[in-house]
Amino acid sequence: MTIIQLFHRSEINNVVRLDKKVVDLVEEGFNALGDNKVQMPPIMRIDVPEHNGEVDIKSAHIKGYDSFAIKLSSGFFNNPQIGLPSANGLMILLSAETGRPMAILADQGLLTDLRTAAAGAVAARHLSRQDSRTAGIIGTGAQARLQLEALSLVRPIERVLVYGRDIKKADAYKEDIEQRLSLPVEVCTHPQEVVGESDIVVTTTPASEPLIKGEWLRPGVHVTAMGSDAEHKQELETSVLERADQLICDVKAQSVRLGELRNCHQETINRAIELGEITSGGKPGRQSADEITICDLTGTGVQDTVIARHVYSLLVPQEEIINGKS
Amino acid sequence: MTIIQLFHRSEINNVVRLDKKVVDLVEEGFNALGDNKVQMPPIMRIDVPEHNGEVDIKSAHIKGYDSFAIKLSSGFFNNPQIGLPSANGLMILLSAETGRPMAILADQGLLTDLRTAAAGAVAARHLSRQDSRTAGIIGTGAQARLQLEALSLVRPIERVLVYGRDIKKADAYKEDIEQRLSLPVEVCTHPQEVVGESDIVVTTTPASEPLIKGEWLRPGVHVTAMGSDAEHKQELETSVLERADQLICDVKAQSVRLGELRNCHQETINRAIELGEITSGGKPGRQSADEITICDLTGTGVQDTVIARHVYSLLVPQEEIINGKS
Repeated sequence: MTIIQLFHRSEINNVVRLDKKVVDLVEEGFNALGDNKVQMPPIMRIDVPEHNGEVDIKSAHIKGYDSFAIKLSSGFFNNPQIGLPSANGLMILLSAETGRPMAILADQGLLTDLRTAAAGAVAARHLSRQDSRTAGIIGTGAQARLQLEALSLVRPIERVLVYGRDIKKADAYKEDIEQRLSLPVEVCTHPQEVVGESDIVVTTTPASEPLIKGEWLRPGVHVTAMGSDAEHKQELETSVLERADQLICDVKAQSVRLGELRNCHQETINRAIELGEITSGGKPGRQSADEITICDLTGTGVQDTVIARHVYSLLVPQEEIINGKS
Repeated sequence: MTIIQLFHRSEINNVVRLDKKVVDLVEEGFNALGDNKVQMPPIMRIDVPEHNGEVDIKSAHIKGYDSFAIKLSSGFFNNPQIGLPSANGLMILLSAETGRPMAILADQGLLTDLRTAAAGAVAARHLSRQDSRTAGIIGTGAQARLQLEALSLVRPIERVLVYGRDIKKADAYKEDIEQRLSLPVEVCTHPQEVVGESDIVVTTTPASEPLIKGEWLRPGVHVTAMGSDAEHKQELETSVLERADQLICDVKAQSVRLGELRNCHQETINRAIELGEITSGGKPGRQSADEITICDLTGTGVQDTVIARHVYSLLVPQEEIINGKS
């Protein structure tokens, strides 16, 4: 009988961390997208309206890889009322050679958090100025922390500006980051302060009304918007995307449906390119210190596949597999 | 920490069997479809072309149910060359109240087999003559066995006619059924013999060219076609569907895309109704002994949800859940 291995969040958390390896693997995933080596169906979504819940399913197979992931991620927005987090989920790793389910990674969203932050680092690596030292973070949640941590892996970040609607959460963010990353954090009272002084801005909110205006952007800034991933969300005014010298997204069809391109004119949509086209070398990234670059990330199945494979290799080292112990 | 329970095929096989309860539950699922109480997205499909493989994902949430399933089913058609079955898969049962994954049912397709056969019984219960005594089975595989077993739960089957391209497999089918179900089986050398003498015909093949012709149908017969579930498959000539006095399918959009309605004229498609409309009482089933009834089954997420819930209740009896032992 074939045994499937089940790993819970704590086991996964023990072996994986947000490091350059994860960023490099996520970049490889984008390269494969850019090279058209990916089978990636549109997101599947099941709604549970009576409990204010939904489950999204993502997957991607990268040509030549011996395994791929299918990811369930749920948002049940009444959960906080009973003391549970809204988000949950798991990944299933399958053999790409036989279809056999190899492992269940019951990560409860941990790996989604990491691969999402890693994509922000990939965007910054190709689109922000190499000497970007000031990071501006909009939002104060888990991604606000992880995106900054990911940026620090690829750019010499020395200073952090943060804005959040809840000042207490912004203060907690400051304390947390200063302790964990030893980076000085300034809490701002308006998002314009953040945008006006940062080399890289990352928006990490579930905002349904845009927070950032095009007129705030200064030459040379790079903005990554990773919050919007649903029809009702929007972080950037369309003027932000219109002002971009380079407009990038992870998956164009998805950004048009669920991301920041949703409200844009067709003309703006037409000039947007995909991150993988840049990482794979097909198109240039930033070309001058003055360009304004904007990247919209909605989340892709390739990111799930590469991180699931990585974690599996950490949990079940290859020697064991070769020796048949697993 | 929340623990997900993982059950392998042997454990599942120990507790579940194809019985009236399963048929009744699958009928409840169709009722919910008929009553528009189901959230059921289209099937998601990931292709792995370099290994001749694919994974389909189905899901459905039934309003008022406290859990629902997401099912992965894979077909990797090079597997037999290395001694593995083509089909594999698993179901994930999630709480409909919180989105929490409750259990992984690593059934390797066992539950799909059962819920598919149960749908055949539901169709026969509402569409075949009550005095149907002769069952005609086209195909000699697992569904050829299970569909017959399911029919026997709802109709007084006394005699079985079987046709398969491989006479050895047909002989093995005869031996197996005569031993397990104590029903006399006659092996036919042409599908027309089966159709001409049966009260109920079930086609269970992966045929890509139609096997059954409309001119063979005699008054009063009921035909269930459950083989076709992909763009390249077809078991019935379109003349079969055109001759039907009542034309039924499980999910119309899916039958038009993947099932027997795919090749039909719009006129024929227009008069097709869904099985749930009949089981829920919205539309009549068979209305006279002479009617020819045809039902095309492509497989639905509601069937997966009802059988996953059923199996979970057998594996983790409610008392244990209430006492917090699980």
